[in-house]
Amino acid sequence: MTDSTDSTEPAVGAPERRPGGRTARVRAQVLDAVRAELAEAGHEGLTVEGVAARAGVHRTTVYRRWRDVGGLLVDVIAAAGEMDWQPPDTGSLRGDLTALNREIQESLVVRPSFAVALMAASFHSEQAARAQTRLWADRYAQCEILVERAVARGELPVRGARDARGARGATELDARSLLIAATAPVYHQVVLLRADPDPRLPERAAAAAVLAAAAGAFSVPRTEGA
Amino acid sequence: MTDSTDSTEPAVGAPERRPGGRTARVRAQVLDAVRAELAEAGHEGLTVEGVAARAGVHRTTVYRRWRDVGGLLVDVIAAAGEMDWQPPDTGSLRGDLTALNREIQESLVVRPSFAVALMAASFHSEQAARAQTRLWADRYAQCEILVERAVARGELPVRGARDARGARGATELDARSLLIAATAPVYHQVVLLRADPDPRLPERAAAAAVLAAAAGAFSVPRTEGA
Repeated sequence: MTDSTDSTEPAVGAPERRPGGRTARVRAQVLDAVRAELAEAGHEGLTVEGVAARAGVHRTTVYRRWRDVGGLLVDVIAAAGEMDWQPPDTGSLRGDLTALNREIQESLVVRPSFAVALMAASFHSEQAARAQTRLWADRYAQCEILVERAVARGELPVRGARDARGARGATELDARSLLIAATAPVYHQVVLLRADPDPRLPERAAAAAVLAAAAGAFSVPRTEGA
Repeated sequence: MTDSTDSTEPAVGAPERRPGGRTARVRAQVLDAVRAELAEAGHEGLTVEGVAARAGVHRTTVYRRWRDVGGLLVDVIAAAGEMDWQPPDTGSLRGDLTALNREIQESLVVRPSFAVALMAASFHSEQAARAQTRLWADRYAQCEILVERAVARGELPVRGARDARGARGATELDARSLLIAATAPVYHQVVLLRADPDPRLPERAAAAAVLAAAAGAFSVPRTEGA
């Protein structure tokens, strides 16, 4: 697997995404097959031939468009990023983070887990790892609105007016650090520590992050021009 | 790789550990070779032949004692658990957790990283995963003393006297949840999100967990007889 990825990243924004077109249909079939093969046998069991057979397309179609297993992994991750996913909106930060954590835990404990298979693949494929890193970054960026809404509702401490850029003592919230503090324990327990899933963990991890935030743990000096 | 592990878990407490003995010397050479091969090529590149060649021992010696790659992985993880590791003792919980996080971050960002190679292996070897889960459980158990010392110093809120078992309203700290909240963001950022290592992260993650703990995030009702 090489590091040159241009020709193996055909997915995002490409004309093939036109809904209903034949290429879009083939892509959907092939990516469904990749997910199924990944979930069943992990990325070690992933082959272009196996994917083509399961998708019911000719393997030269797969080779031409995705080139190799790395290209398939990149595209299946890109497709996850194209999903119309919306962060939860429950009316409180604690509720939002709990809902987010429940969704994460569910995706990790379901067997077979496509999410865990992707993480495993990212340890072994530089292409898959980079695609996954982009997907995570997008998802955390999407979730920053949870923190913005909490600030707007007055749930979290922010010193200084919103328009008082760089005013002495003004702070803003490091939303990403808060989101990571809230979600990391779920990944850590389920994926790395392989603990039995604890149904209370999503809410507890969310509540701990909110308490830390309320105590100023993620407040940083407002940056000039932010 | 099978699930029966007795014959592939020869390490802990076995007479071979007698310091200075020939078998102990062979084990040290072989495990050093496993670590080097893992760090260089990951577990996918790990073979009994490669380990034997690097260790300078006959491959039948390796087959007889460790049987296969799974046995080697289990023993290298067991050896990590036998290390005389002590949790930090800086005089404050925040300082202790920061020191712990620095040690964790260092082990994850060093290239090649033996710790990351082991995590990758645990996605693919059930034996390695179970051995790693035991090692993590031991390490977190060892670290509970950080929380106990903080409680004894009065840094953290615990309602009810230590000997008032189960008294109404008495609480104790869920030390493990606190430790996971403090350390999980470091693993998450470095291993899963593959972010550039942030030298401030160890202290920030530690500080956030301490603030959450001080606000009661990890306080649970004291259990009868605890």
